[in-house]
Amino acid sequence: MQFHLNGFRTGDPAILEPLEGAEIDAAGAPLPDKVDVLIVGCGPAGLTLAAQLSAFPDITTRIVEQKDGPLQLGQADGVACRTMEMFNAFDFADRVMKEAYWVNETTFWKPDGGAKNRIARGGRIEDTEDGLSEFPHVILNQARVHDFYLDVMRRSPRRLQPDYSRRLMDVTIDETASDHPVTVWLERIDAEHAGQVEVVKARYVVGCDGARSGVRKSLGQALKGDSANQAWGVMDVLAVTDFPDIRLKAAIHSATEGSILIIPREGGYLVRLYIELDKLNADERVADRNLTADTLVAAAKRIIHPYTLDVKEIAWWSFYDIGQRLTDRFDDIRGGGVGTRTPRVFIAGDACHTHSPKAGQGMNVSMQDTFNLGWKLAAVLRGQAAPDLLDTYSAERHAIAKELIDFDRDFARMFSARPKEADDDAEGIDPAEFQRYFVKQGRFTAGTATRYRPSAICAEPAHQRLAEGLPIGMRFHSAPVVRLADAKPLQLGHVVKADGRWRLFAFAGAEDPAAAGSTIRALCDFLSESPASPIRRYTASGEDIDSVIDVRAVFQNDHRTLALDALPPLLLPAKGRYGLRDYEKMFCADLSGGKDIFDLRGIDRTNGCIVVVRPDQYVAHVLPLDAHRELSAFFDGFMLPQG
Amino acid sequence: MQFHLNGFRTGDPAILEPLEGAEIDAAGAPLPDKVDVLIVGCGPAGLTLAAQLSAFPDITTRIVEQKDGPLQLGQADGVACRTMEMFNAFDFADRVMKEAYWVNETTFWKPDGGAKNRIARGGRIEDTEDGLSEFPHVILNQARVHDFYLDVMRRSPRRLQPDYSRRLMDVTIDETASDHPVTVWLERIDAEHAGQVEVVKARYVVGCDGARSGVRKSLGQALKGDSANQAWGVMDVLAVTDFPDIRLKAAIHSATEGSILIIPREGGYLVRLYIELDKLNADERVADRNLTADTLVAAAKRIIHPYTLDVKEIAWWSFYDIGQRLTDRFDDIRGGGVGTRTPRVFIAGDACHTHSPKAGQGMNVSMQDTFNLGWKLAAVLRGQAAPDLLDTYSAERHAIAKELIDFDRDFARMFSARPKEADDDAEGIDPAEFQRYFVKQGRFTAGTATRYRPSAICAEPAHQRLAEGLPIGMRFHSAPVVRLADAKPLQLGHVVKADGRWRLFAFAGAEDPAAAGSTIRALCDFLSESPASPIRRYTASGEDIDSVIDVRAVFQNDHRTLALDALPPLLLPAKGRYGLRDYEKMFCADLSGGKDIFDLRGIDRTNGCIVVVRPDQYVAHVLPLDAHRELSAFFDGFMLPQG
Repeated sequence: MQFHLNGFRTGDPAILEPLEGAEIDAAGAPLPDKVDVLIVGCGPAGLTLAAQLSAFPDITTRIVEQKDGPLQLGQADGVACRTMEMFNAFDFADRVMKEAYWVNETTFWKPDGGAKNRIARGGRIEDTEDGLSEFPHVILNQARVHDFYLDVMRRSPRRLQPDYSRRLMDVTIDETASDHPVTVWLERIDAEHAGQVEVVKARYVVGCDGARSGVRKSLGQALKGDSANQAWGVMDVLAVTDFPDIRLKAAIHSATEGSILIIPREGGYLVRLYIELDKLNADERVADRNLTADTLVAAAKRIIHPYTLDVKEIAWWSFYDIGQRLTDRFDDIRGGGVGTRTPRVFIAGDACHTHSPKAGQGMNVSMQDTFNLGWKLAAVLRGQAAPDLLDTYSAERHAIAKELIDFDRDFARMFSARPKEADDDAEGIDPAEFQRYFVKQGRFTAGTATRYRPSAICAEPAHQRLAEGLPIGMRFHSAPVVRLADAKPLQLGHVVKADGRWRLFAFAGAEDPAAAGSTIRALCDFLSESPASPIRRYTASGEDIDSVIDVRAVFQNDHRTLALDALPPLLLPAKGRYGLRDYEKMFCADLSGGKDIFDLRGIDRTNGCIVVVRPDQYVAHVLPLDAHRELSAFFDGFMLPQG
Repeated sequence: MQFHLNGFRTGDPAILEPLEGAEIDAAGAPLPDKVDVLIVGCGPAGLTLAAQLSAFPDITTRIVEQKDGPLQLGQADGVACRTMEMFNAFDFADRVMKEAYWVNETTFWKPDGGAKNRIARGGRIEDTEDGLSEFPHVILNQARVHDFYLDVMRRSPRRLQPDYSRRLMDVTIDETASDHPVTVWLERIDAEHAGQVEVVKARYVVGCDGARSGVRKSLGQALKGDSANQAWGVMDVLAVTDFPDIRLKAAIHSATEGSILIIPREGGYLVRLYIELDKLNADERVADRNLTADTLVAAAKRIIHPYTLDVKEIAWWSFYDIGQRLTDRFDDIRGGGVGTRTPRVFIAGDACHTHSPKAGQGMNVSMQDTFNLGWKLAAVLRGQAAPDLLDTYSAERHAIAKELIDFDRDFARMFSARPKEADDDAEGIDPAEFQRYFVKQGRFTAGTATRYRPSAICAEPAHQRLAEGLPIGMRFHSAPVVRLADAKPLQLGHVVKADGRWRLFAFAGAEDPAAAGSTIRALCDFLSESPASPIRRYTASGEDIDSVIDVRAVFQNDHRTLALDALPPLLLPAKGRYGLRDYEKMFCADLSGGKDIFDLRGIDRTNGCIVVVRPDQYVAHVLPLDAHRELSAFFDGFMLPQG
């Protein structure tokens, strides 16, 4: 954490100074007539976007929600490693780590070979492979994730809070309007304001309003897909059991009674059970069956036999049928309209993709949707990037959602299949095969397999060999380093905060970086002085030099052997009202663990390289250290010069 | 974190349920007539005690403070490793880690051999030796430490808050009274209540009211000691400098201009400078000199030459003279009175020991004072332990304060001495010798060298060879383990929370712990069933079995090879209103790091052992696993049987 740059201030440094001169939202107050961004829906997607936009005091954001207050009891609970990395960008990964259940290992249970009516443990694996992320896969009530986002918003300069008890009535787009072209009608539904209609004009509207999204309907889009006609139940319970893996994630396939997925929950006692119920008839919905919590408990007891399950309290339960559905696009551009005008309305999360919950993907993918969108909206609204940057949202995230839908169909099918009893049993599934599939898909479910295709903000991988372990289009995979100025060991990726900035990591080659003719010095000189430098072109005068593109250098040297004051001045920049030096731009290899970041990420030790990282932590480009012109050309492709 | 034991509850689990039926403190309300404990002074010592006592809803605590609100700008800033371990017991070490500056390395500067009027770096060391603690040595504004304690208090069942604007008038003790024998007179000094006098009767009073302690004066005690007649200044600044180690802790000895100690501060920009000024005359005080901040800046510039220092903002500054002072006792017992009656008034922190601030010990030792006292007061007030337990407070902490005073005298003298220029310069000090002294004292300044002498709560080390690395009387040194039930890697020491409970760690020997005749099973059977078991004798009926003595087992096995359900039932206890099982009592060796906890702490692999840990994290006893009788005898020495 960096603070006190513009003067010492007492109190909690995570509570940012309130914005002077701008209105601060008051809870319950009417909505303003005009906003930059109106977000509909306070779920994980909506809150991720609101938290991201709250980082920019110059953007007016409102987030409206039909419910009358914060969520108390969430449905989703899985937090993938990749999501933890994003939470770290919002500075609350540590709070989640402390409170959540950690999914360390997964066990697989199948019918006992000797007695088919009993289950027996068939396998045990690490839930996420070593080195996949510096964060664990964890489980935490969705309501607590909301709380952490609400905290981020509340501490932001505008003290952003949701506007509750607003029902969406309609959204219209005036494609001819030059400014605030979207109009949103909302009805207040709290007792005090019941029936009042608010009309808000917005530059952009984002529908994060779930599977029954009103925003999606206003765009004339539909969720398309099919159902597997398989009923499932889910319940969170406090129970006494002699099943030994009750505190491990456990997939249980019984011989004839169906399947259970056990997901231990936070706090040491609570556990979630996903329980397979009957096959539904064609066109039948699970809601038609009038199922009760007792049905679930009875099914669970049958499946877990010979172990006992004594349910003491059911904190929450529900039923669902498995289906995989997706919209055609995630914005308001239709048919061949891409590139002809700026998208103005977006949809994210369940509003554009729904699937089964067991793989724990829904909340995670939804949040990544709006983490992808947030910085783009901010860059366009702040005049840093051209509006066609916004076309990349639907392009990038629709492809990811399609992959998810396909994965989920396979996963759900395999989970519901009967355990195979013999090799010639064509319909069943070998539990060992299920386990292999689970391992194989580990990176996908951890969220770290996402790879965006080449576009204006994701370069073609012409120089990928310079950093084999940091593939363009994939998230920047962190590794340990030591900060030069204060010898602090830390994760390099953790400098990528959700602040809308680009990062340029300059990994030094074999040369002496302090030498007069070093390529890293030449790069720094180019970046600080050349008129072609993207830093000079895209940073407004008067702003700190790292406010748009934040340059960090990583050296191969032991930190004790490198003289801080002999290195390029760009890496010790003067900032803020006092011109204080920022000492957190230079890092050295962490030699304590055997392999350093150059080994771990396959960085060319002879030549070094530049790795450009997007504000949402994805690698945008890998370039030779002396590729000044290509570096400029990349940013010139989508950014707007500043005065 | 464990929660939901007695039912699912929404919201932040760190905010405990408010106590039903008991009054919740209202800010600004009058003090009650009677309390169990009245704490005077809201500094680090007072707040540590208040936070500790707030864990017990059945104890009425008040903490009064002369100031009108929480501290905004603290003087102390060093947080030793041992203190971080204690903060972890209060569950906020993570918040401190995130916000604080980490002292990773220390450098030593001395006159340049070639040009004596210039300084040059003479050495560089790790600030704390590897493996000393799982926590770093950090620097954070004392006011933030206060904030974290206030948070703990606010979240406790009684929602404890300080009562501000109260000036202590007098304290008297009626040694003949059977109940609430201490009477405290306080004057309210806020405008609204100015002049109102409150009289509070307390069972115990603790003076944490600083070097000018009114509580100490009421006991007729005085701080005794001497002064080195050496003036020092200290300032927290935002500055621009080309001194390369400005983000490292750096001790600078110039040839003729004096010394500076540089302590970087949290946030990346702020830095604290301790600056040596002139020698004072005998009986002269630094306050007599009318020194200003400009004096400090000018001296700093001279010492740091040839580097420049451009101070942009001074956040705080002060002067002090070095002195080491100590009271005779830390309670109200005089002369030969120990053992004749229960101490009723205690003093802690600066009220009983003062010294120079540079070694960063003041705040740390003060907090350890009341961490030592807090659980003892709670145990006596709750009827768990006999009142003579309270005699151990002064005995244990006075000895530690004496060591501190002696250390500080040496350290301050060495710091103020002129750098030696030749071997025959008897008065000067060789900078290399200073560096060696610094390294040698590393454990002391980290707070991990504290060792309490044998007493009723610290056994004679008859069986120390069974756990060479966990010396009786020293703090339980944590090491990594893997939790059996959920395969979570964690630090064993982190189960020792500030909840007043004793811990009994049973380290298994070479045998199969699940075998019918294993010594660990025999121990568990003894503990759960024998009338001589300290758990049975000292746990009230109706309380959870781990509410007084919390048994945890550590096995040498890989966690995947040990069947949870084959181990003794005491290690899977049923708790709370539902009889839910607690799955967090069993741990296995963490084999991932090369050395496991048995190697790291020198635990006998053949025989195993019992390690008894006090509520303040100090090792109280090491015993063979089958020493049932000795184990009972230890607890029988100070605890009171329950009905």
